[in-house]
Amino acid sequence: MIGLFVAFEGGDGAGKSTQVDLLADRLGQEGYAPILTRQPGGTALGRALRDLVLHGDHMSARAEALIFAADKAQHVEELIRPALLAGEIVITDRYTDSSVAYQGAGRDLGAQEVHDLQMWAVHDLVPDVTVIIDITAEEGRRRRGEVHDRLESEEDTFHEAVREHFHALAAAAPERYLVVDGTTDPIEIGAQIWERIEPLLPARPEQDPLL
Amino acid sequence: MIGLFVAFEGGDGAGKSTQVDLLADRLGQEGYAPILTRQPGGTALGRALRDLVLHGDHMSARAEALIFAADKAQHVEELIRPALLAGEIVITDRYTDSSVAYQGAGRDLGAQEVHDLQMWAVHDLVPDVTVIIDITAEEGRRRRGEVHDRLESEEDTFHEAVREHFHALAAAAPERYLVVDGTTDPIEIGAQIWERIEPLLPARPEQDPLL
Repeated sequence: MIGLFVAFEGGDGAGKSTQVDLLADRLGQEGYAPILTRQPGGTALGRALRDLVLHGDHMSARAEALIFAADKAQHVEELIRPALLAGEIVITDRYTDSSVAYQGAGRDLGAQEVHDLQMWAVHDLVPDVTVIIDITAEEGRRRRGEVHDRLESEEDTFHEAVREHFHALAAAAPERYLVVDGTTDPIEIGAQIWERIEPLLPARPEQDPLL
Repeated sequence: MIGLFVAFEGGDGAGKSTQVDLLADRLGQEGYAPILTRQPGGTALGRALRDLVLHGDHMSARAEALIFAADKAQHVEELIRPALLAGEIVITDRYTDSSVAYQGAGRDLGAQEVHDLQMWAVHDLVPDVTVIIDITAEEGRRRRGEVHDRLESEEDTFHEAVREHFHALAAAAPERYLVVDGTTDPIEIGAQIWERIEPLLPARPEQDPLL
């Protein structure tokens, strides 16, 4: 892959969207036009699947894991992989780690089997950098304010299990992860992220040594 | 499992629905009340997923395989496994073998990986007997008459690959398969199926040795 693939992960309310926006703005100032996307729901199929999961009736744990994997498969094949092959910068709000953490660590499926399923879905495409924005379950609940849908109404213990899973992933592959403290100032967090991303940037699209 | 689980497989137009009906009628005459179902689409979730696959836009091969697997997972957990645990006879029009044959053998995914995916989805629940109704791709096309949806408009070569895959499955596990010639008389086919199913029947619900 000749582009750059960055994923943001973290609990609900951690501030992922804010940091995605800050990074996109900074990249814009530097002459890049990053592609912003999100999961679930980064494609038309993904949005239909996301609606089924969030607002449908009772769903078995395996069916839910498979539907999130289908969203990933379509997202990677339709959007992410072609963009990276064209040298673009792709920033996604959530990727495979959220699925593994939410369906694997927090529920009744094994994290390893959900991981294997996700890797099959994305045909082994892993981000160059995954930024984990870390907040406690309690802080996340305070920020979310109220219950919006089925997934967000889970207990704090579930969110703590998800958080521990993110920490374990980062500890196992520090070269591919950046963990930032989501309770510090957003501008400061943005600076930490930029420090990690800047050395990895591909050549600017308009860069021309003759000018 | 204390019930009996029978699956019907075969190409489009092979006559599966006719044989499902004949078997159900015969079971009814013998005092059983079999549960009839179908895949994809055996549950409300499954029907929503089926609509996405059959009538949606371009879908990646992996996304399609994952969506069919999600349909299976929900179908087994919500309907098939509880019924079998309650001692019921469950007859399904298509099950995992169709998915493996259609997505695995006929397309660009490996049959083994689609098989593994399906087995994970159904948590290793395999039918007691799978009846394969065998017709050539040419005969199937003649019977279908016209194109109804995306999957049915594939070429004969695809249907021949599917057919060969069914034959390979039956050859590998003859104790769990019955292959019947779909071009013979439906009543004769039904008799062959009954001969295979009858010795496997569980006790009748109303059976009472004191009467």
